[in-house]
Amino acid sequence: MSDAGVQILGIPGLPEVKPGDALGALLLEALRRIPIQVRRGDILVLAHKIVSKAEGRTVPLATVTPSPLANSWAREWGRDPRVVELALSQSRRIVRMDRGVLLAETSHGFVCANAGVDLSNSPEGMAILLPEHPDRSAAGIRACLTETMGVDLAVIITDTFGRPWREGQVNVAIGVAGGMPLSDYRGSKDGFGRTLQATCIARADEIASAAELVMGKRRRVPAALVRGVRLEAGPGGGSNLVRPPERDLFR
Amino acid sequence: MSDAGVQILGIPGLPEVKPGDALGALLLEALRRIPIQVRRGDILVLAHKIVSKAEGRTVPLATVTPSPLANSWAREWGRDPRVVELALSQSRRIVRMDRGVLLAETSHGFVCANAGVDLSNSPEGMAILLPEHPDRSAAGIRACLTETMGVDLAVIITDTFGRPWREGQVNVAIGVAGGMPLSDYRGSKDGFGRTLQATCIARADEIASAAELVMGKRRRVPAALVRGVRLEAGPGGGSNLVRPPERDLFR
Repeated sequence: MSDAGVQILGIPGLPEVKPGDALGALLLEALRRIPIQVRRGDILVLAHKIVSKAEGRTVPLATVTPSPLANSWAREWGRDPRVVELALSQSRRIVRMDRGVLLAETSHGFVCANAGVDLSNSPEGMAILLPEHPDRSAAGIRACLTETMGVDLAVIITDTFGRPWREGQVNVAIGVAGGMPLSDYRGSKDGFGRTLQATCIARADEIASAAELVMGKRRRVPAALVRGVRLEAGPGGGSNLVRPPERDLFR
Repeated sequence: MSDAGVQILGIPGLPEVKPGDALGALLLEALRRIPIQVRRGDILVLAHKIVSKAEGRTVPLATVTPSPLANSWAREWGRDPRVVELALSQSRRIVRMDRGVLLAETSHGFVCANAGVDLSNSPEGMAILLPEHPDRSAAGIRACLTETMGVDLAVIITDTFGRPWREGQVNVAIGVAGGMPLSDYRGSKDGFGRTLQATCIARADEIASAAELVMGKRRRVPAALVRGVRLEAGPGGGSNLVRPPERDLFR
């Protein structure tokens, strides 16, 4: 850690992103307007919605025909059957479907409400899906920015997930490029020289949460720059944050 | 959000905390040595270990007599039976006890591995428990600092928890004083003027995660100062982050 600690800046001024937009170019322009100059090691954090919109991962609700399951569930719990239908279509496994909560495992392996299908901060009547390959999306944006700016940065794409046992949602990393999402301390020493047994920190999730502090749902600041912390070098992406079924006690 | 965004500074230089130490006074001294002056609205984030140590919430393992359950479980999974015994003693409900993982609900309602009993960053042969009343601990430290410094700040006490479905651990808030741990946006408008239905952000958890970026298990920096984000004014503490049983799909 440098003496300056960690700094997190919101990146305002992005236009409403539309399918087919070159998100890298839009980000580049927005980055030119923030009060600091991007430098090597900075981490660009993006709300997945702008990525999904640029990639055309949006669905007009009017085009969705709910199945009988979606209809009956939606009726029982006062939900929009078209959103339920979309959520089912984005799921590879339903984890819980109870008390109005549809918790699903997405094709990526993420476990989240409505399989990540969301209506907030989207144009009227339009649902936003998760990016199809968030790690690939992150890598693409990183490649574009690194090449254009000549600065090597990492990119984290986020979504806001609920958690069991705890109230409220937090921002987590669903796509990561430019470093490893986990900081594995197992085998290294603590402050007393004792070997750490179990400590493996989900650094990319913590950075996603930190970035949310300046992003916020209401403010239309869908991007942030994080300085002063690095992802450890190495391969890997947001998919490494998905716990494999054999280690999962909550399937 | 100010133009400076959010800033997170580690607070180094705390001595090894011992039972009975006046933690407020130690923090005061350490805060005097950081390069910025504490000001109103700053949030002081503390790893619970220094709080537990000051409060004498440590147990010499040599004094623990494991029960038959602790012994057999520990033997089966290669754990220390005294740690298992302590974990059972700190639990009000066992959530999962499988594949070497003992996941328990603590007396506070937190669901975490070993009911929060931990050996890392503790003197040899000494286990650290969670503070008995983390919200009260946070309020006490806040009162001490606010009075001595004449500056109103918030205090968050943290621990590192694992999560279902996701690899790695993240820092979360277990004690909060000086603001509300949740930012409830339900009923407010998104960037499109649509009413947000489900967004309630666990701000204190995100701040805890952000602070971990400068704290770290290996570096012996058990405290951080977070500037540029506020907890919403109001009553409430870390206990508000515990989901009540009737809303919990994962009991």
